[in-house]
Amino acid sequence: MTALLPEGLRDRLPPHADAAAAIEARVLAAVGLHGYERVDPPLAEYAESLATRLKDGGLNDAVRFVDPVSQRTLAVRPDLTAQVARIAATRMAHHPRPVRLSYAGSILKLRGGQLSPARELRQIGAELIGLDSVAAAREVVTVAVEALEAAGVSGVSIDFTLPDLVDALAAGAMPVAAEQLASLRERLDAKDAGSVAQIAPAYLPLVEAAGPFDQALARLRAFDTAGVLASRLDGLAEIARAVDGRVALTLDPTERHGFEYQTWLGFSLFARGAGAEVGRGGTYTIVHEGGAEEAATGFSLYGDRLASEPAPERRRLFLPLGTPATDAARMRAHGWVTVAALDAGDTCAAQLCTHRYADGDAQPV
Amino acid sequence: MTALLPEGLRDRLPPHADAAAAIEARVLAAVGLHGYERVDPPLAEYAESLATRLKDGGLNDAVRFVDPVSQRTLAVRPDLTAQVARIAATRMAHHPRPVRLSYAGSILKLRGGQLSPARELRQIGAELIGLDSVAAAREVVTVAVEALEAAGVSGVSIDFTLPDLVDALAAGAMPVAAEQLASLRERLDAKDAGSVAQIAPAYLPLVEAAGPFDQALARLRAFDTAGVLASRLDGLAEIARAVDGRVALTLDPTERHGFEYQTWLGFSLFARGAGAEVGRGGTYTIVHEGGAEEAATGFSLYGDRLASEPAPERRRLFLPLGTPATDAARMRAHGWVTVAALDAGDTCAAQLCTHRYADGDAQPV
Repeated sequence: MTALLPEGLRDRLPPHADAAAAIEARVLAAVGLHGYERVDPPLAEYAESLATRLKDGGLNDAVRFVDPVSQRTLAVRPDLTAQVARIAATRMAHHPRPVRLSYAGSILKLRGGQLSPARELRQIGAELIGLDSVAAAREVVTVAVEALEAAGVSGVSIDFTLPDLVDALAAGAMPVAAEQLASLRERLDAKDAGSVAQIAPAYLPLVEAAGPFDQALARLRAFDTAGVLASRLDGLAEIARAVDGRVALTLDPTERHGFEYQTWLGFSLFARGAGAEVGRGGTYTIVHEGGAEEAATGFSLYGDRLASEPAPERRRLFLPLGTPATDAARMRAHGWVTVAALDAGDTCAAQLCTHRYADGDAQPV
Repeated sequence: MTALLPEGLRDRLPPHADAAAAIEARVLAAVGLHGYERVDPPLAEYAESLATRLKDGGLNDAVRFVDPVSQRTLAVRPDLTAQVARIAATRMAHHPRPVRLSYAGSILKLRGGQLSPARELRQIGAELIGLDSVAAAREVVTVAVEALEAAGVSGVSIDFTLPDLVDALAAGAMPVAAEQLASLRERLDAKDAGSVAQIAPAYLPLVEAAGPFDQALARLRAFDTAGVLASRLDGLAEIARAVDGRVALTLDPTERHGFEYQTWLGFSLFARGAGAEVGRGGTYTIVHEGGAEEAATGFSLYGDRLASEPAPERRRLFLPLGTPATDAARMRAHGWVTVAALDAGDTCAAQLCTHRYADGDAQPV
């Protein structure tokens, strides 16, 4: 017998699907309390329009098809942030800044990633459009932590990175030949001290400046003898302070993988027990029609990776055949999930009921 | 400037997207109170597997693509009930019957319908797998009505139909030549009395047996002089009685359009003010691996058509620059949506705030 579903696509069954939906609702509610309002872009749109707002090659992962109506190529979204950026840059272009938007939706990819074969993910997030300041990042990181707390995720840690750090140093205080910059960035990301020493030995201390946040930050400050990073590091410290004590913090200043389109700040969200990161975020740039650029800060969580807890136990009340409809309605009004017998053969046990309606009330079985 | 989005695909913006999500959550909660537990099938699956569970031609409307992993054709779902049927027939095949399942998800169609150009719809529903009895239909119709009530939909009406009525009569008490059956069904559906009189004059009374439920039922009973429909009509009356007084009821016994795969009962759900039907349901048959058939009853609502009410007014609390984080957290804990100033230029008005935090409390503005 062939597999029921293609690799990377799966059914969520009871009680897990209900539990996942409840977690998503709690995440959105937590985000909403900070003023983020929901947008809901369509599953598919013009491929060209999506591509201009996705990182290089992002659309290679998208399911594309020719639209019989417009005769143009559409893509099923492989990512929601590009759509939110489109909304912010077009339909909400005239809304006063900053604009706070949230979203939750399914994304579909043609291929799974190296670490995770999933090709459909539930992406839940919040974007603050119009700002990428320290205050903006502090809010977004705080909201991400509160969203994970609302989801019931425990053992959260945040790994910060400074995606354009090497570019900024190379363009200023610590020049690197243009043709060597890409390989320097890559070797730093790989923590390959030998190669870094060969390419640009002055950058070698950055290989060691990764680890627990306070320690890594201290090493970065020591490395920054000229003080060119001081305001950036002060900002980072302020962001970290907002969530210190609630979550574990690490810093890997030269990590670039997955942060190709972030500007000065990026962060990954991890949870104890989750195999992969549960989310990520950072500062980035939105391109408006005509080419104007706008700063933004945001994060996304991957819904399927949040539900690490066992689903809550069911509490179901069996209604024997002939239970009056008004009695049933009364029990539901009291919060009971009722499961009505529809046939003489229906049993409480087969319907996974924990209680039976008898003598006008719920009796445990 | 070209249109931002393809025809039939749209963005839902604040505050409507939040309102639609809230309505969907209330619908699922109402359904859940009757013991329906959520399943969440993937956005895409093997086209062949979906096609065998969709009505004829259903997959013509689906976005299809070749899966680079399996080299087989996948389809983005144009309908969720076929996926729920697959789950019931495979992964939940051994679960005691009846199985009560609910779902909510986006569906995508290559083309819009004649009446509605929408190509993405939010489908929310419940399926009772294993039964298509009067008791099953009574429960499903009741749950549909309660789901619409929970959604805040007003002026609900249900139009019942008996999809296989003509087939049943033609095969028994009122024979019709096999080659004329299809056109008789079609002419009856079109209320074309002239043609019906030509094809099979005995069926003419059925053209008139459509309208307000009690009146149409009485005409059907008068038509059924031989009593071959008696048990079917008694069942229908019992189903209607369960929701009579809560919603308006009509009966169009020979309506077939859109009920090609329903068995003895179908129903459409309408709401005052909604341009198109807000949902539909009925009894149908699930095909298991190996060909065994199983009865089922269910309904689907179209989420986008439920939100006819204006979205609730926003209540947002502006936090001036420098508001302590603990004060902000306290106001959120009291249920306030807080919108923090992140910049000296941020204003309460620009952030659509109704209140401002001052003197330790929310002050209306």
